[in-house]
Amino acid sequence: MKAMGSIPAGYGADERGALVVAEHPVGYWMEKAGSSPIFLYDTERVAAQVESFRRLMPDRLALHYAVKANPFGPLLDFIAPLVDGFDLASRGEIARVSHLDLPKSLAGPGKSDKDLEAALSAGVTIHVESESEAERACLAGRRLGIQPKMAVRINPPFMLKGAGMKMGGLASQFGMDAPLVAPLVKRIFEHECEWRGFHIYAGSQSLSESAILEAQRETLKLVAELTAEIGTPPPEVNLGGGFGIPYYSGEKPLDLAPIGEGLDAALGELSGDFADTQFVIELGRWLVGEAGIYLTRILDRKVSQGETYLVTDGGLQHMLAASGNFGQFLRRNYPIKLAERFAEEGDSAAHVVGRLCTPLDLLGDAVPMPADAKVGETIAIFCAGAYGLTASPQEFLSQPAAVEMLAQSSG
Amino acid sequence: MKAMGSIPAGYGADERGALVVAEHPVGYWMEKAGSSPIFLYDTERVAAQVESFRRLMPDRLALHYAVKANPFGPLLDFIAPLVDGFDLASRGEIARVSHLDLPKSLAGPGKSDKDLEAALSAGVTIHVESESEAERACLAGRRLGIQPKMAVRINPPFMLKGAGMKMGGLASQFGMDAPLVAPLVKRIFEHECEWRGFHIYAGSQSLSESAILEAQRETLKLVAELTAEIGTPPPEVNLGGGFGIPYYSGEKPLDLAPIGEGLDAALGELSGDFADTQFVIELGRWLVGEAGIYLTRILDRKVSQGETYLVTDGGLQHMLAASGNFGQFLRRNYPIKLAERFAEEGDSAAHVVGRLCTPLDLLGDAVPMPADAKVGETIAIFCAGAYGLTASPQEFLSQPAAVEMLAQSSG
Repeated sequence: MKAMGSIPAGYGADERGALVVAEHPVGYWMEKAGSSPIFLYDTERVAAQVESFRRLMPDRLALHYAVKANPFGPLLDFIAPLVDGFDLASRGEIARVSHLDLPKSLAGPGKSDKDLEAALSAGVTIHVESESEAERACLAGRRLGIQPKMAVRINPPFMLKGAGMKMGGLASQFGMDAPLVAPLVKRIFEHECEWRGFHIYAGSQSLSESAILEAQRETLKLVAELTAEIGTPPPEVNLGGGFGIPYYSGEKPLDLAPIGEGLDAALGELSGDFADTQFVIELGRWLVGEAGIYLTRILDRKVSQGETYLVTDGGLQHMLAASGNFGQFLRRNYPIKLAERFAEEGDSAAHVVGRLCTPLDLLGDAVPMPADAKVGETIAIFCAGAYGLTASPQEFLSQPAAVEMLAQSSG
Repeated sequence: MKAMGSIPAGYGADERGALVVAEHPVGYWMEKAGSSPIFLYDTERVAAQVESFRRLMPDRLALHYAVKANPFGPLLDFIAPLVDGFDLASRGEIARVSHLDLPKSLAGPGKSDKDLEAALSAGVTIHVESESEAERACLAGRRLGIQPKMAVRINPPFMLKGAGMKMGGLASQFGMDAPLVAPLVKRIFEHECEWRGFHIYAGSQSLSESAILEAQRETLKLVAELTAEIGTPPPEVNLGGGFGIPYYSGEKPLDLAPIGEGLDAALGELSGDFADTQFVIELGRWLVGEAGIYLTRILDRKVSQGETYLVTDGGLQHMLAASGNFGQFLRRNYPIKLAERFAEEGDSAAHVVGRLCTPLDLLGDAVPMPADAKVGETIAIFCAGAYGLTASPQEFLSQPAAVEMLAQSSG
């Protein structure tokens, strides 16, 4: 058997041993969906993450949801009253939250005129990532008769160490190199656009409290330097995100307490110039990742050269990241369990595969399963709430679509 | 500058230096599509590949198109009169070719009852991959009052050496281990289903003529052994595919001549029992891969820490494989060119990136580009005809869809 990640804490079984989500066994949700595979998002877990953030992070910090992690409509509706804003990555995402009245910002290295116009029309702050983009945003504002709100995204000269995705300390398509920032902010003033501040994103999917805190401290230092150069304090500073969740063997959940304490101290050391500055953390994966479970039924069980294969009705067309084909250098196992027998320890190695005609379609490599796992039973893959369905090639091999649904307690 | 693959032979420029596809410069096709990015499929190149196959491969060999490589409707309509059958991987693919009257087969390790019923209703031969699947196909046939046509897919005890995807010589979810095949064929006879033969797929994306030929010889040897065991010659033998195309630096196109000669000799050595057996090769990537070009406009040009970034309106949401995130162990550059200045040698290194907020979205890493490549010009990524759009996470970050179209000469 090969190692796999730990099941996220708090999932349990009913008296028959089946995995329970929002007070019901998974069979209830599969039946309710009327199909397989499904993505089930447990709203209580999302709410608990927000509550934990509010409890452990500084009070003056705003929490934005990064919609790209999971743009499922009902999930957006659920999370809207819990967070302070939405961070968006396309005009498609602007449209998805157009009915939700919260502060919104748009980031991304390639914004077309249509994207800029959509942002302006919807009152969305544009996080500009180049001089020419800022010029185009000003022109678009003049065309539409709307004063653009712009923050400047910075390519930080430091990185979030040990992050799953490093987005700083290197040449990059994201944001602007620090020396270019103050001149651009001056141009924004000259153009009589509204300057909204800074956006600094040093990396994502970190499980190191000290690395996150160090990046936040470096961010505040950079902000102070740039503010001195500009001469006007920023109305808002987006400190990025980077809070990871454990996917693989040996990984542990992030402890927010030391990050919150350290950041509180760092914010306290800032000069009075920043008294009115709104600091923001944008989180996607950390808020919704562990709330999602991908459930897929076993269609066939076969033995080849002595190895057991559980062939499911799902696959990488829904859960590319679990197959190890989305940015991972080495394939490792996501946490995975037989859902109807969640309480049972798996004592036999099985390969859990999807239904596609490609050896890439491996969802669990020699993972522990009950020796008699059988056709019709359900495989649960955890940590499927972020960068799951929309980060997968859903049309690949023209297989049926997966259904997404919220799991909410009846009570 | 980093290395990149060679532009497929035969693409050229017009008098202004622009890339020409089907007698028109790319600007014509972009305007016709009315949007960017687009996937353009040059039908003449597809026809030329078929012609080359017919000329160089044995006459008695049938050619099937593997629809999963590219299921774009107009492309299927174009290719239907040129090939002898369709190999399908889902009931979705069955639906896509339902109006096209050709022999069809369905393969895949996870077929549901709905899939089997769809195949039976459409007269599609089922390539069964386990005993239980064969039983379910027989039951489905009885339910529908249709005699199932079944071939047995074999997990070959040898592999296609050096293949991009090895699908033999290992434990596998695909097909049945060889010792299980003859007993299953006997069960098929007992159930009074129609036995259609064998399907043996040893790997894909090979650029070694000798390795392909060796796998074909091994396949024929295995077929002869199993036929002796069963006592009845197979009506049909699908020899798999495996013909690759060059994507990366140093790779050369496959030469079909020695494969054709070698396979002709090997077929000639078969006993008279196989006089009526139809041998089939199924190809997807080799038929359509080089016919496809992904065209995406430059939205921004920026310099970060001295490195140039061309930010396009496309990205890995359309061309995941070109970003190195679809089964590749190491990221290498696909062939890529500035389309309007195809005739110009690039003398400056640029990173060609998509518009997504992730460092994974790298379409060309330090590839040669004209030093003054500018906003509004078009990047062409070659080898985009197979495992392109449908093998990509199209909904990722809710970006606009890419348009697909055929490029056909007006004459």
